[in-house]
Amino acid sequence: MMQVSEITWTETEKEIAQQAFKKAYDREIMALIDYVQDQSDKIAKIEDVWYLHDFLSARRHQIDGKYDYRYSVLLFVFAQLLKEGWLYLEDIQGLEREKVSKISALSRM
Amino acid sequence: MMQVSEITWTETEKEIAQQAFKKAYDREIMALIDYVQDQSDKIAKIEDVWYLHDFLSARRHQIDGKYDYRYSVLLFVFAQLLKEGWLYLEDIQGLEREKVSKISALSRM
Repeated sequence: MMQVSEITWTETEKEIAQQAFKKAYDREIMALIDYVQDQSDKIAKIEDVWYLHDFLSARRHQIDGKYDYRYSVLLFVFAQLLKEGWLYLEDIQGLEREKVSKISALSRM
Repeated sequence: MMQVSEITWTETEKEIAQQAFKKAYDREIMALIDYVQDQSDKIAKIEDVWYLHDFLSARRHQIDGKYDYRYSVLLFVFAQLLKEGWLYLEDIQGLEREKVSKISALSRM
Protein backbone atom coordinates (compact mmCIF):
# COMPACT_ATOMS: atom_id res chain seq x y z
CA MET A 1 0.00 0.00 0.00
CA MET A 2 1.35 3.38 -1.01
CA GLN A 3 1.95 5.82 1.79
CA VAL A 4 1.69 9.08 -0.08
CA SER A 5 1.82 11.22 3.02
CA GLU A 6 5.33 9.98 3.79
CA ILE A 7 6.76 10.80 0.39
CA THR A 8 9.40 13.48 0.46
CA TRP A 9 10.57 15.60 -2.45
CA THR A 10 14.08 16.89 -2.88
CA GLU A 11 14.60 20.40 -4.19
CA THR A 12 15.67 18.98 -7.55
CA GLU A 13 12.57 16.83 -7.68
CA LYS A 14 10.40 19.81 -6.85
CA GLU A 15 11.87 21.72 -9.78
CA ILE A 16 11.30 18.78 -12.12
CA ALA A 17 7.75 18.37 -10.81
CA GLN A 18 6.93 22.05 -11.24
CA GLN A 19 8.21 22.04 -14.80
CA ALA A 20 6.35 18.83 -15.64
CA PHE A 21 3.16 20.23 -14.12
CA LYS A 22 3.49 23.38 -16.18
CA LYS A 23 4.21 21.45 -19.38
CA ALA A 24 1.10 19.32 -18.94
CA TYR A 25 -1.01 22.36 -18.13
CA ASP A 26 0.29 24.28 -21.14
CA ARG A 27 -0.40 21.32 -23.44
CA GLU A 28 -3.94 20.93 -22.19
CA ILE A 29 -4.61 24.67 -22.41
CA MET A 30 -3.24 24.90 -25.94
CA ALA A 31 -5.46 22.00 -26.99
CA LEU A 32 -8.42 23.68 -25.31
CA ILE A 33 -7.76 26.96 -27.11
CA ASP A 34 -7.45 25.15 -30.44
CA TYR A 35 -10.73 23.35 -29.81
CA VAL A 36 -12.56 26.53 -28.76
CA GLN A 37 -11.38 28.39 -31.85
CA ASP A 38 -12.32 25.48 -34.08
CA GLN A 39 -15.80 25.20 -32.54
CA SER A 40 -16.24 28.96 -32.68
CA ASP A 41 -15.46 29.02 -36.39
CA LYS A 42 -18.27 26.49 -36.88
CA ILE A 43 -20.95 28.44 -34.98
CA ALA A 44 -23.98 28.92 -37.23
CA LYS A 45 -26.88 29.17 -34.78
CA ILE A 46 -27.56 30.04 -31.16
CA GLU A 47 -27.56 26.40 -30.04
CA ASP A 48 -23.91 26.23 -31.13
CA VAL A 49 -23.13 29.19 -28.87
CA TRP A 50 -24.84 27.57 -25.88
CA TYR A 51 -23.07 24.30 -26.61
CA LEU A 52 -19.75 26.18 -26.47
CA HIS A 53 -20.84 27.75 -23.20
CA ASP A 54 -21.75 24.37 -21.68
CA PHE A 55 -18.48 22.92 -22.90
CA LEU A 56 -16.47 25.75 -21.31
CA SER A 57 -18.39 25.42 -18.03
CA ALA A 58 -17.49 21.74 -17.82
CA ARG A 59 -13.85 22.16 -18.88
CA ARG A 60 -13.26 25.06 -16.52
CA HIS A 61 -14.54 23.02 -13.61
CA GLN A 62 -12.43 20.01 -14.61
CA ILE A 63 -9.25 22.01 -15.12
CA ASP A 64 -9.65 23.98 -11.89
CA GLY A 65 -10.06 20.73 -9.98
CA LYS A 66 -7.37 18.76 -11.73
CA TYR A 67 -4.35 21.07 -11.59
CA ASP A 68 -3.76 20.86 -7.86
CA TYR A 69 -0.08 21.33 -7.08
CA ARG A 70 0.16 20.00 -3.54
CA TYR A 71 2.84 17.42 -2.86
CA SER A 72 0.34 15.34 -0.88
CA VAL A 73 -1.68 14.70 -4.04
CA LEU A 74 0.88 15.26 -6.78
CA LEU A 75 1.46 11.57 -7.61
CA PHE A 76 -2.26 11.22 -8.27
CA VAL A 77 -2.36 14.41 -10.30
CA PHE A 78 0.57 13.28 -12.43
CA ALA A 79 -1.00 9.83 -12.88
CA GLN A 80 -4.21 11.43 -14.13
CA LEU A 81 -2.32 13.73 -16.50
CA LEU A 82 -0.23 10.82 -17.78
CA LYS A 83 -3.39 8.78 -18.38
CA GLU A 84 -5.00 11.64 -20.27
CA GLY A 85 -1.91 12.22 -22.39
CA TRP A 86 -1.03 15.71 -21.15
CA LEU A 87 2.03 14.51 -19.22
CA TYR A 88 4.75 12.32 -20.74
CA LEU A 89 7.02 9.98 -18.80
CA GLU A 90 10.02 11.93 -20.08
CA ASP A 91 8.68 15.01 -18.30
CA ILE A 92 9.14 13.34 -14.93
CA GLN A 93 12.56 11.84 -15.60
CA GLY A 94 14.76 12.73 -12.65
CA LEU A 95 12.16 11.95 -10.02
CA GLU A 96 13.18 8.97 -7.90
CA ARG A 97 12.34 5.63 -9.48
CA GLU A 98 9.78 4.83 -6.78
CA LYS A 99 7.72 7.93 -7.57
CA VAL A 100 7.79 7.29 -11.31
CA SER A 101 6.68 3.69 -10.72
CA LYS A 102 3.80 4.81 -8.55
CA ILE A 103 2.70 7.43 -11.08
CA SER A 104 2.83 4.84 -13.88
CA ALA A 105 0.93 2.27 -11.86
CA LEU A 106 -1.74 4.77 -10.83
CA SER A 107 -2.14 5.95 -14.42
CA ARG A 108 -3.19 2.45 -15.44
CA MET A 109 -5.88 2.15 -12.81
CA MET B 1 -51.17 54.98 -15.75
CA MET B 2 -50.81 52.21 -18.28
CA GLN B 3 -53.05 49.23 -17.72
CA VAL B 4 -51.06 46.55 -19.48
CA SER B 5 -53.25 43.72 -18.30
CA GLU B 6 -56.21 45.19 -20.19
CA ILE B 7 -54.41 45.44 -23.52
CA THR B 8 -55.82 43.19 -26.20
CA TRP B 9 -54.10 42.05 -29.36
CA THR B 10 -55.84 41.37 -32.63
CA GLU B 11 -54.77 38.40 -34.70
CA THR B 12 -53.04 40.74 -37.14
CA GLU B 13 -51.22 42.45 -34.29
CA LYS B 14 -50.13 39.11 -32.91
CA GLU B 15 -48.60 38.21 -36.25
CA ILE B 16 -46.79 41.54 -36.45
CA ALA B 17 -45.61 41.16 -32.85
CA GLN B 18 -44.30 37.65 -33.42
CA GLN B 19 -42.39 38.71 -36.50
CA ALA B 20 -40.97 41.78 -34.74
CA PHE B 21 -39.95 39.65 -31.76
CA LYS B 22 -38.19 37.19 -34.04
CA LYS B 23 -36.43 39.93 -35.98
CA ALA B 24 -35.07 41.49 -32.80
CA TYR B 25 -33.97 38.10 -31.50
CA ASP B 26 -32.28 37.19 -34.75
CA ARG B 27 -30.44 40.52 -34.84
CA GLU B 28 -29.20 40.15 -31.29
CA ILE B 29 -28.16 36.53 -31.84
CA MET B 30 -26.30 37.37 -35.04
CA ALA B 31 -24.43 40.15 -33.24
CA LEU B 32 -23.65 37.74 -30.40
CA ILE B 33 -22.29 35.11 -32.80
CA ASP B 34 -20.15 37.75 -34.56
CA TYR B 35 -18.78 38.90 -31.22
CA VAL B 36 -18.04 35.36 -30.00
CA GLN B 37 -16.21 34.50 -33.21
CA ASP B 38 -14.26 37.73 -33.07
CA GLN B 39 -13.27 37.19 -29.44
CA SER B 40 -12.43 33.58 -30.12
CA ASP B 41 -10.07 34.55 -32.92
CA LYS B 42 -8.21 36.75 -30.44
CA ILE B 43 -7.75 34.09 -27.75
CA ALA B 44 -4.06 33.83 -26.86
CA LYS B 45 -4.08 32.62 -23.28
CA ILE B 46 -6.28 30.80 -20.82
CA GLU B 47 -7.60 34.01 -19.24
CA ASP B 48 -9.09 34.88 -22.63
CA VAL B 49 -10.95 31.55 -22.63
CA TRP B 50 -12.37 32.15 -19.15
CA TYR B 51 -13.31 35.69 -20.12
CA LEU B 52 -15.29 34.25 -23.04
CA HIS B 53 -16.91 31.79 -20.66
CA ASP B 54 -17.90 34.55 -18.21
CA PHE B 55 -19.21 36.63 -21.08
CA LEU B 56 -21.36 33.76 -22.39
CA SER B 57 -22.70 33.01 -18.90
CA ALA B 58 -23.87 36.59 -18.55
CA ARG B 59 -25.30 36.91 -22.05
CA ARG B 60 -27.14 33.60 -21.84
CA HIS B 61 -28.79 34.67 -18.62
CA GLN B 62 -29.73 38.08 -20.07
CA ILE B 63 -31.11 36.66 -23.30
CA ASP B 64 -33.09 33.91 -21.57
CA GLY B 65 -34.68 36.50 -19.32
CA LYS B 66 -35.29 39.15 -21.92
CA TYR B 67 -37.03 37.26 -24.73
CA ASP B 68 -40.27 36.59 -22.91
CA TYR B 69 -43.14 36.40 -25.40
CA ARG B 70 -46.14 36.82 -23.14
CA TYR B 71 -48.68 39.44 -24.13
CA SER B 72 -48.86 40.64 -20.52
CA VAL B 73 -45.23 41.80 -20.67
CA LEU B 74 -44.71 42.29 -24.40
CA LEU B 75 -44.89 46.10 -24.40
CA PHE B 76 -42.07 46.15 -21.85
CA VAL B 77 -40.08 43.59 -23.79
CA PHE B 78 -40.44 45.58 -27.02
CA ALA B 79 -39.51 48.81 -25.20
CA GLN B 80 -36.34 47.19 -23.88
CA LEU B 81 -35.44 45.82 -27.32
CA LEU B 82 -36.14 49.18 -28.94
CA LYS B 83 -33.92 50.90 -26.37
CA GLU B 84 -31.11 48.44 -26.98
CA GLY B 85 -31.37 48.80 -30.74
CA TRP B 86 -32.47 45.24 -31.57
CA LEU B 87 -36.01 46.28 -32.46
CA TYR B 88 -36.84 49.10 -34.89
CA LEU B 89 -40.04 51.14 -34.89
CA GLU B 90 -40.70 49.97 -38.43
CA ASP B 91 -40.86 46.38 -37.12
CA ILE B 92 -43.93 47.20 -35.07
CA GLN B 93 -45.74 49.23 -37.70
CA GLY B 94 -49.28 47.89 -37.87
CA LEU B 95 -49.76 47.67 -34.12
CA GLU B 96 -52.39 50.12 -32.90
CA ARG B 97 -51.04 53.63 -32.35
CA GLU B 98 -51.60 53.39 -28.58
CA LYS B 99 -49.31 50.37 -28.26
CA VAL B 100 -46.57 51.93 -30.35
CA SER B 101 -46.75 55.10 -28.25
CA LYS B 102 -46.44 53.12 -25.03
CA ILE B 103 -43.51 51.11 -26.36
CA SER B 104 -41.77 54.31 -27.47
CA ALA B 105 -42.40 56.03 -24.15
CA LEU B 106 -41.21 53.05 -22.12
CA SER B 107 -38.08 52.77 -24.27
CA ARG B 108 -37.05 56.29 -23.20
CA MET B 109 -37.41 55.58 -19.49
